[in-house]
Amino acid sequence: MRMYDIIYKKRNGEELTAEEISFFIHGYVQGNIHDYQASALLMAIYFQGMTKRETAELTLAMAESGDMVDLSGIQGVKVDKHSTGGVADTTTLVTAPLVAACGVQVAKMSGRGLGHTGGTLDKLESIPGFNIFLPTQRFVEIVNHIGLSVVGQTGNLVPADKLLYSLRDVTATVDSIPLIASSIMSKKIAAGCDAIVLDVKTGSGAFMEKVEDSFELALQMVEIGSQVGRRTAAVVTDMEQPLGMSIGNALEVKEAIEVLKGMHSGPLQEVCILLGAYMLYTADGCMDIKEGRQMIRDALYQGKGVQKLKEMIAAQNGDVKVVDDPSLLPIARQVIQIKAERSGYIMFTDARAIGISAMLLGAGRSTKEDIIDHGVGIVMKKRLGEMVKAEDTIAEFYVNREEHLENALEIFRNAVKIGEQKPEGRPLVYGVVTEKGIERWS
Amino acid sequence: MRMYDIIYKKRNGEELTAEEISFFIHGYVQGNIHDYQASALLMAIYFQGMTKRETAELTLAMAESGDMVDLSGIQGVKVDKHSTGGVADTTTLVTAPLVAACGVQVAKMSGRGLGHTGGTLDKLESIPGFNIFLPTQRFVEIVNHIGLSVVGQTGNLVPADKLLYSLRDVTATVDSIPLIASSIMSKKIAAGCDAIVLDVKTGSGAFMEKVEDSFELALQMVEIGSQVGRRTAAVVTDMEQPLGMSIGNALEVKEAIEVLKGMHSGPLQEVCILLGAYMLYTADGCMDIKEGRQMIRDALYQGKGVQKLKEMIAAQNGDVKVVDDPSLLPIARQVIQIKAERSGYIMFTDARAIGISAMLLGAGRSTKEDIIDHGVGIVMKKRLGEMVKAEDTIAEFYVNREEHLENALEIFRNAVKIGEQKPEGRPLVYGVVTEKGIERWS
Repeated sequence: MRMYDIIYKKRNGEELTAEEISFFIHGYVQGNIHDYQASALLMAIYFQGMTKRETAELTLAMAESGDMVDLSGIQGVKVDKHSTGGVADTTTLVTAPLVAACGVQVAKMSGRGLGHTGGTLDKLESIPGFNIFLPTQRFVEIVNHIGLSVVGQTGNLVPADKLLYSLRDVTATVDSIPLIASSIMSKKIAAGCDAIVLDVKTGSGAFMEKVEDSFELALQMVEIGSQVGRRTAAVVTDMEQPLGMSIGNALEVKEAIEVLKGMHSGPLQEVCILLGAYMLYTADGCMDIKEGRQMIRDALYQGKGVQKLKEMIAAQNGDVKVVDDPSLLPIARQVIQIKAERSGYIMFTDARAIGISAMLLGAGRSTKEDIIDHGVGIVMKKRLGEMVKAEDTIAEFYVNREEHLENALEIFRNAVKIGEQKPEGRPLVYGVVTEKGIERWS
Repeated sequence: MRMYDIIYKKRNGEELTAEEISFFIHGYVQGNIHDYQASALLMAIYFQGMTKRETAELTLAMAESGDMVDLSGIQGVKVDKHSTGGVADTTTLVTAPLVAACGVQVAKMSGRGLGHTGGTLDKLESIPGFNIFLPTQRFVEIVNHIGLSVVGQTGNLVPADKLLYSLRDVTATVDSIPLIASSIMSKKIAAGCDAIVLDVKTGSGAFMEKVEDSFELALQMVEIGSQVGRRTAAVVTDMEQPLGMSIGNALEVKEAIEVLKGMHSGPLQEVCILLGAYMLYTADGCMDIKEGRQMIRDALYQGKGVQKLKEMIAAQNGDVKVVDDPSLLPIARQVIQIKAERSGYIMFTDARAIGISAMLLGAGRSTKEDIIDHGVGIVMKKRLGEMVKAEDTIAEFYVNREEHLENALEIFRNAVKIGEQKPEGRPLVYGVVTEKGIERWS
């Protein structure tokens, strides 16, 4: 088998066999296939796409390119969730404890934030003492014991994805839906859960800005799941503005705790309940989505979620007292009020720019090497479509340093526009995708 | 400027600027751009194509990537020709002396053969003593003195093409018409002539098998020439069967000498006269093609071409006696007659396979490192559409070694089919392309 022939075949729009896909992935990981041949194939895939079968086989070959997490020590169905990334997207910290509180085991491997998006691991690390790097054995023990653990990747998980993503990043082949779908799903499959719920974001702060592309990505991921025997569902949700009100690690932990305490209703709570319902449903923890929603809502208002979060923090050596008293979390020295310059409606928000503004304050990373300041960030005080008066506070900046501050303020001001017309409302949830196909809600 | 943005732009179907193209070519030659980015761009070009302007600017940037041959020491218009490569395609050895004999200076840089196609340099080297590697100064002197010289490349000519071609060859991006056109034309432009005539082959033995692709390649090359100020014309000619009757280096020199002596009319002579007429015309050596043809024909039948060939051989230290006595050329020890297995018409010929068969005898190279045996090859005795009787000789194999012989014979037998139906005739010349556009002859 020759890599040349594989490139040639895909370039001409033919379907690759499982053997050809496996030859490429394993050869590339072993260093037997040159970067220049891999990038030519990726560009050919960008133009010619992949069939369902090809995408599933690519995903499996990638998942099997390194270690596979063995969760067989956990009895029963294990469910995982994944968000394609957003701003103030604090769903894991709320949903995972609620699902576990409803009796379905959540064994989740999370990632770090990059660019305008945050990452669950960074948020958890803002809790004093919290340990995200556990050996698999301990991870399994915690899930068996309390039904919930969230950790970082250990071992050599999906090296093919790391290599391919680095190459795609410099060859303009990132935004290919089958390549995105296989990248995400290979990691979820290697992480070992039986059921997977995906939150595919859409809008200015999302990786996929167009609704149709988000549905297509959701559909391809659900199809991969069903081809490789993992029950998978996806929800397509709005990321035109930050989902919650807080952007920044400790700020988001605080907001998550407050949501779990029933202190905030609103879009973050709503999306968390929906995701939780689908996690229960794919893991056979409820009869239907309606029942799942009710179970999650009950767990929330009965305080079972906040209790489960405490159990997880304790199991992973974090300071449990932050749940009762979030002021124990790291907090920036200075708070700057951002005032409305005129009266009117919040006409427009650019979620990506708001995320970048928070990143510049130190809440995120522009490169993998950047160090995060857990106490800084932005708290939004108004949402898209809300009426404001001149001098109303529309946001608060939590700041520890002068560096990049002017730039962050300027980006933020351009990211939130006030005007006279009330903007048309956007749906919060565009629809869901299950093995039965796409179900549009708007 | 970043290579990433150039790939992204071309991938999205946008037109690259001259600065972007130059950044890519010069950066790649200097080693500042990675192979994996170059191959991604080449694949994006394969899918998105290039505009006339882009192709011309790519060609110029490539031509200027290394040394440019300075032919200013030659007074008047200098003409060059190029064939896209074929089997028994001995036109340079016939046409160049005829054009020079008509008073137009021919300063030609030729290449070597690879795969099923022959190369003029290899053919010239079968003449004992003939020197193809002359310093530019000597090349200029010879053209000034006798109006004709054919040499190999010296110096660092078009390094961008060497690098890009090697990369395209392993990334399935060879067959992109703008990339082929710029590869050929960059070398012709760097070689320094004022006028360029191209022989674009079409059919089973050609690089371009389809007539429409051959016209498109011809058109793109003529457009490049006109954009960079070189008078350029192209003819599209048939390569469904070998053009001449002889395949193999000394055998082809012998046939060329015989054509120049007026001993053979037929397709090789016909294409040589047409190419010669266009070479005269683009170099202002005649009023129109009709006059050009007549001038070339006169030079041939008056023996002026064969005389000019002698002068060139003498000037380049070759043994002039081979012209009067071609038996002085190297010749294989053994001649094998290939007989018709049945009576009928020559129904089908596969020119590429016939070329490969000759290559296997030692007449050509399957890799650049292979050493050529100048005395071996194949002489065809019948042409497509001719009637043969069983046991008639359809070809002669000139053989020096047993190695690969069985394989060569088998390939040849499959490449020439005899049947009961006389096949439909194919045109020898499909048309010409000049600055006025495409003129179809059939």
